[in-house]
Amino acid sequence: MSALPVSQSFDPQSPVFRAHEGGKLAVHATSVLQDADDLSLLYTPGVAEVSRAIASDPVLANHYTSRRNTIAVVSDGTAVLGLGDVGPLAAMPVMEGKAVLFKHFADVDAVPVCMETGSVDEIVEAVARIAPTYGGINLEDISAPRCFEIEERLKARLGIPVFHDDQHGTAIVALAAMLNAARVVEKELEDLVVVVSGAGAAGVAVARILLLAGVRDVIVVDSKGIVDESRADLAPHKRALAEVTNRGHRVGSIGDALDSADVLVGVSGGTIAERDLLRMAPRAIIFALANPDPEVHPTVAHRFAEVVATGRSDFPNQINNVLAFPGIFRGALDSGVKQITEEMKLAAAHAIADLVPTPTADQVVPSVFDDRVAPAVAAAVRRLASY
Amino acid sequence: MSALPVSQSFDPQSPVFRAHEGGKLAVHATSVLQDADDLSLLYTPGVAEVSRAIASDPVLANHYTSRRNTIAVVSDGTAVLGLGDVGPLAAMPVMEGKAVLFKHFADVDAVPVCMETGSVDEIVEAVARIAPTYGGINLEDISAPRCFEIEERLKARLGIPVFHDDQHGTAIVALAAMLNAARVVEKELEDLVVVVSGAGAAGVAVARILLLAGVRDVIVVDSKGIVDESRADLAPHKRALAEVTNRGHRVGSIGDALDSADVLVGVSGGTIAERDLLRMAPRAIIFALANPDPEVHPTVAHRFAEVVATGRSDFPNQINNVLAFPGIFRGALDSGVKQITEEMKLAAAHAIADLVPTPTADQVVPSVFDDRVAPAVAAAVRRLASY
Repeated sequence: MSALPVSQSFDPQSPVFRAHEGGKLAVHATSVLQDADDLSLLYTPGVAEVSRAIASDPVLANHYTSRRNTIAVVSDGTAVLGLGDVGPLAAMPVMEGKAVLFKHFADVDAVPVCMETGSVDEIVEAVARIAPTYGGINLEDISAPRCFEIEERLKARLGIPVFHDDQHGTAIVALAAMLNAARVVEKELEDLVVVVSGAGAAGVAVARILLLAGVRDVIVVDSKGIVDESRADLAPHKRALAEVTNRGHRVGSIGDALDSADVLVGVSGGTIAERDLLRMAPRAIIFALANPDPEVHPTVAHRFAEVVATGRSDFPNQINNVLAFPGIFRGALDSGVKQITEEMKLAAAHAIADLVPTPTADQVVPSVFDDRVAPAVAAAVRRLASY
Repeated sequence: MSALPVSQSFDPQSPVFRAHEGGKLAVHATSVLQDADDLSLLYTPGVAEVSRAIASDPVLANHYTSRRNTIAVVSDGTAVLGLGDVGPLAAMPVMEGKAVLFKHFADVDAVPVCMETGSVDEIVEAVARIAPTYGGINLEDISAPRCFEIEERLKARLGIPVFHDDQHGTAIVALAAMLNAARVVEKELEDLVVVVSGAGAAGVAVARILLLAGVRDVIVVDSKGIVDESRADLAPHKRALAEVTNRGHRVGSIGDALDSADVLVGVSGGTIAERDLLRMAPRAIIFALANPDPEVHPTVAHRFAEVVATGRSDFPNQINNVLAFPGIFRGALDSGVKQITEEMKLAAAHAIADLVPTPTADQVVPSVFDDRVAPAVAAAVRRLASY
């Protein structure tokens, strides 16, 4: 765990520290406890009857325990926002914030579980051991490539939805935005040449969902250049990516990737030079999603692209995971599915996009505070759950 | 309230199942989220400032995260109430009920963590890994003798209070009741001959706290008879107990232990025959704590003892852990102690006893709903924390 300098002086009276004072979550009892009769129902001896019923029929746990509506927001604090490996304690405010969003947007009861970091085996074992408590697991801010294996192994092992939001939340909302951006620039989604800058959790997931959605030409670029099968230095998750992307086998830098490209999706946190952006096709699309500093500032990006989106709330077209994750888990908990399938992710993206029936360059996704979003996403998940 | 029959049919319309419908807990956000400004304070980008501050100074996690007031109620469901090993799902209603009590009596935010059972190593590893999330760990309904080693190892490893309530909650309240019962029967605590029937979690802890409180003659009995160093069949935790109890080296059955004994504490769940109770000293004390079926029914016990207590709310003198655990953790969280010490447990027992300044045969402990109890226990813990 690396100690980071406190960039601004720590001021307990500042709005941000006051908003976090005492933490942001509390537990609320949904049953009345006033007298001995209540006590004997909610606790011993009455509760034994409920325990006995669940022991006989475990499905009843979904009706008579909080796991019905509770998910864990699990992190080991190894890849927190733009901060990196700050450890589990420093990850707590972020996971609590996430829990606040789950509650606010979709009435999902989410509780942080911040873990001492460890090997993939250790994290998987710990999450699997506590899993009976929850109706779902939202993985968050776990460093790549560990996050890929952790999610895959937990999905294979647990009978409840496991969803790594840094991957799939970003991917779903980026696809939603791209569906509508393609309409604005009057190009077919399938025909787009899309460059994804960054091969971490978000980059991998964005590339994969675009392929799944029908985009034929996706090119991923990491700090060494275009991710291609010809490279000898690829980690396993990048090698797997190289097998399905860059089918034209371009080689070279981000500028080479961007040559005649229709779309740039930045999920790298670096910066991209204007001379590279100049090489993009006419009527281009730029999603510069690094937060708080986009890979290309929106005013610059507009010189090279017709549709520009960022992760920020102070520019149009905010691509924010909160458009996806609350509704995803709402739908999953409501329908009792064991997995969030690829089809559900695609359907969620379409549901988000469809809420902007007439997209414009300044609106390709609904507002984060549009209260139709989470119900629409949840409904998309539930529809597929019934198949 | 009467004991529930073992095999009552599952009736969703019964009061107990209706009280548990949907679970008994929800998450509550303590910060306002209404607009984009709130979002940027509670979540990205504002939250990064808080994470960065905690990464620089981990102590700030106690001010700016929910761990300040949150504990985990951890169980693997191997020793649930009178039900035994019913597993983590069936343990959930009990742990949720416990969380409701923590909230109601002491405003402690408690969350259930129900784990797949495993070896002592596996349980210790899992709890230690998730520990950064919480300000304390309440262990619950974990089978003996695993519970002893799990608690000891976690206490040694973690920098937050770890408290196995089945042991210490029971022990604290039993001691509180005994302090006052001794006054009623006009005997000195130190002079009492106390027989503890049961050498599980509660029996071990009751025996140990009584010794610590000054009782010189404590005799523990298990299903094979008096626990004594001469026995070759003792498990390690019972052997350790034999080294400090039964200093008169009695041998034989529960009847032999009760011969001239002043006190019987039943924490075994079995039954004790009247012919054995007949051997007790005049002005005897019987605590028959098995729930819902006491080892001796109170009406029978009164024929042999002047003071009778049970775990039940429908008879006088209810010895219920809820008199201890909410205040214990309230005091621990308030004062930021790293351990619940033996001195704190003794002080908690005295604080509970002192709330009944003139004890009678029908009142040796305050009511479970006496709202002075948790604050008094918390104050006792805080006082010792400052030394």
